Amino acid sequence: MEAIHSYSEKASLIIKECELVLKSIDPQSVEQLLDEIEKADKVFVVGVGRVLLSLQAIAKRLNHLDIKAYCVGQIDEPPISEKDLLLVGSSSGETIIPVSIARKAHELCARIGYMGASPDSTVRKIADFYVQIPTRRSNDSSAVIISQQPMTTLFEQVLLLFGDAITLMLMERKGLKEKDVLLKHANLE
Amino acid sequence: MEAIHSYSEKASLIIKECELVLKSIDPQSVEQLLDEIEKADKVFVVGVGRVLLSLQAIAKRLNHLDIKAYCVGQIDEPPISEKDLLLVGSSSGETIIPVSIARKAHELCARIGYMGASPDSTVRKIADFYVQIPTRRSNDSSAVIISQQPMTTLFEQVLLLFGDAITLMLMERKGLKEKDVLLKHANLE
Amino acid sequence: MEAIHSYSEKASLIIKECELVLKSIDPQSVEQLLDEIEKADKVFVVGVGRVLLSLQAIAKRLNHLDIKAYCVGQIDEPPISEKDLLLVGSSSGETIIPVSIARKAHELCARIGYMGASPDSTVRKIADFYVQIPTRRSNDSSAVIISQQPMTTLFEQVLLLFGDAITLMLMERKGLKEKDVLLKHANLE
Amino acid sequence: MEAIHSYSEKASLIIKECELVLKSIDPQSVEQLLDEIEKADKVFVVGVGRVLLSLQAIAKRLNHLDIKAYCVGQIDEPPISEKDLLLVGSSSGETIIPVSIARKAHELCARIGYMGASPDSTVRKIADFYVQIPTRRSNDSSAVIISQQPMTTLFEQVLLLFGDAITLMLMERKGLKEKDVLLKHANLE
Repeated sequence: MEAIHSYSEKASLIIKECELVLKSIDPQSVEQLLDEIEKADKVFVVGVGRVLLSLQAIAKRLNHLDIKAYCVGQIDEPPISEKDLLLVGSSSGETIIPVSIARKAHELCARIGYMGASPDSTVRKIADFYVQIPTRRSNDSSAVIISQQPMTTLFEQVLLLFGDAITLMLMERKGLKEKDVLLKHANLE
Repeated sequence: MEAIHSYSEKASLIIKECELVLKSIDPQSVEQLLDEIEKADKVFVVGVGRVLLSLQAIAKRLNHLDIKAYCVGQIDEPPISEKDLLLVGSSSGETIIPVSIARKAHELCARIGYMGASPDSTVRKIADFYVQIPTRRSNDSSAVIISQQPMTTLFEQVLLLFGDAITLMLMERKGLKEKDVLLKHANLE
Repeated sequence: MEAIHSYSEKASLIIKECELVLKSIDPQSVEQLLDEIEKADKVFVVGVGRVLLSLQAIAKRLNHLDIKAYCVGQIDEPPISEKDLLLVGSSSGETIIPVSIARKAHELCARIGYMGASPDSTVRKIADFYVQIPTRRSNDSSAVIISQQPMTTLFEQVLLLFGDAITLMLMERKGLKEKDVLLKHANLE
Repeated sequence: MEAIHSYSEKASLIIKECELVLKSIDPQSVEQLLDEIEKADKVFVVGVGRVLLSLQAIAKRLNHLDIKAYCVGQIDEPPISEKDLLLVGSSSGETIIPVSIARKAHELCARIGYMGASPDSTVRKIADFYVQIPTRRSNDSSAVIISQQPMTTLFEQVLLLFGDAITLMLMERKGLKEKDVLLKHANLE
C-alpha cells in the first residue's frame, strides 16, 4: 500500500541519515565541548533559521542543568566577557549573523566554539575549538553522507539530537537526576 | 501644505493622547508596583501581541537594573514561586493567555500585578494589586479619553512609556547611573 | 575508553528511541494530516517550550513548500477561520496555552489536529483528528517505550523528525524539488 | 508629597522628550517613507534589542493594513527581492546585525530605508532614503535634545510612536477604518 510505504520510507531515511552523522562526530571533540561548557561562566548561542531553533532547544536544556545559557538577541541577554563561551551553530560557517557575532565575541575575548560542517569556514577560523557535524551535502571530502533531505535539514536534526546527547552526558558529569532537572523547568505552562 | 499638516497632526494627536493617559495613572499605584518589584525575587511578564512587545521592553530594562525579569515562554524561563511577581499586561483583562497564566501563577502562590484598563476584568480579580492605565475606548466611566487610534494602540504606547518612567524611578531608588545600567547591557550587537 | 564510550552510548540511545517512536506512528494518521494540510487555506501551530521549537521548524518548512503556516503569537499572525487548520503539539495534551488556544480555535470553527502522546487528553477531545506520537513515559499502555531521556525530550525530537518526514511526503505530492523549495527560503542571512 | 512628585515628574519628562523629537521629524521624509512602503511588494524590518521591539510593533500594524511586513529572522520570512523594501532601525547606524543585513539587502537590490539618528553612519550610506529621528545624545549638531533617559530609550519610544503616526497616515491614504484593520487582526488570543 503506497501511503504506508511512503511514510515509513521517509522515517527510515531520516533515522538512517541522523544515525550516520550523529555517530560520526568525534567523541574527543564532544568531551572538549563539555569541558568548555563547564568552565564557562555563561554560554551564549548564535545561529539563524532552523539551526537557531535547535540551538534554542540546547540553551533551554542547559538552563535546566543550572548552566546559564542565552541566545544572542534574547530579552535578558547579558554582556559577554572573557569568562564566557559563545557557541556558533552554522552548517556553512559563512552565514552573516553568526560570522559577525563571532567576530565581535572574539574582540571581546570570549571563548568561541563552532558546531558546524565546514572545517575551512570563516567561523572555524575564528573559533577556539570545533565540533564537526559532518553533514555537508556538497562533494567535499569531510561529509559522511549525501543527504536526500532539502537544504540543511539534516544538520538541524543532528544538532538537536547532539544537544540532547550532551545533556545526558552533562547530567552524568554533574550527578543530576531528572528530578533535579525539573526544579529549573518553567511551571507557567 | 497637506503632507506636512498630515504628519504633524498625527504626531500631535498621539502625544496628546499619551500625555493625558500617562499623567492620569495614580502615583500611589506606581509606588506600590515599585515596592512589589523590589521585593520580588524574580519578575515575570505576560501579555500578547503588541502589548507583549511593550512588556518585553520593560523586562529588558529591568534586567539592566539587575532585576531578574522574564517573559513567560522565553528560552531560559525558570519556575515561578511564591517569592516572585507576575505582571500581567492586558487592556481588557480578558485575553486568553494572560488570564490562563495568571490563574496558574495564582495557584503557584506568586504575587500578581495587573497593568491594564479594566477594573472589573477577570485578571483584575485574580491580581493582588493593580495599576490602572485608563485607556479603554468604550464609553465606560474609567476611561479618561476616547482614543482616535485603532484598537489598543494607545494602551501599548502608554505601557512602553510607563515602563520607562518606572525605570527612571527605580534607578533613583537604587542610586544607579547610566554607566551602571550599561554594565548589564548586551554587547554582542 | 570512557569518553568515547559515553558519547557513543548516548548517541545510540537517542537514535534507538527516536527510531522506535517515529516508526510506530500510524501511517494512515499521517496521510490524513497531509490531506488536512493540503486542504487548509492556512496552517497555524501552537505549543510551548521545546515542543514549540519543533513546531516552528515545521512551520518554517511548510512556508518553503508554499503552504502558509503561522505560529500562534507571531508578528504577522492573521485571524483563523473555518477554512484553516490549527495543529496543536503537546505531549500531555493538557498544557494551558495549547488547550486554551484549541478551545478558541474550535469556537471559531477552524479544523484542529492534535499531534501528541495522550489519547485521553483534553486537546484530543477538542481535535478533529489525531496523530499519535507514542512517547508517554508513564506506564500507560499507549507508550511504545520508556524513554531514558528527561521530561518530554523524546517527544520534541520525534516531532522535529516527523515534521521533516511529512515535508518529504508533501514535496512528493506537490512534485517539488529542492530548487523549488529554495525559492521561498529567506536570503537575508 | 515625594512619591507623587516623582512619578509625575518622570511622566512629564518622557512626554516632553518624545514630543520634541517626534515633532522634529521632517514631514517630507515621512511622505517619502509612505510612498516607498506603498510601492514595495513586501516590507522587511531589521534592528536589535528594544529597537527591534518597536520595529516589530510597526510590522505587526502594517500587516493589519494589508501590507506584507516581516521581521528579518521570523519563521515565515520570505526571500527579499528588488521589488521589496528593507527598513533598518538603528540609532547609531553602526550596529552589527543591521549593518550586515543592510549590506546583504543592497547586494540583492532591495530598496533600503534608514530610520535612525546618525546622518553620517554606515547604514545611512547604504540606504536609499533616510528618516532622521534626531535623538542622538552626544553633542553632535543633529540632535534636538540631550535626553535624560538612559541609552537609546528615547529613540525606541519615538520609533514606536512614529510607527503609529505613519499607521494613521496609511489608513487615511488607503481609506481604511478601524473595522477594516480589525479584519486582519489575530483572533487566537
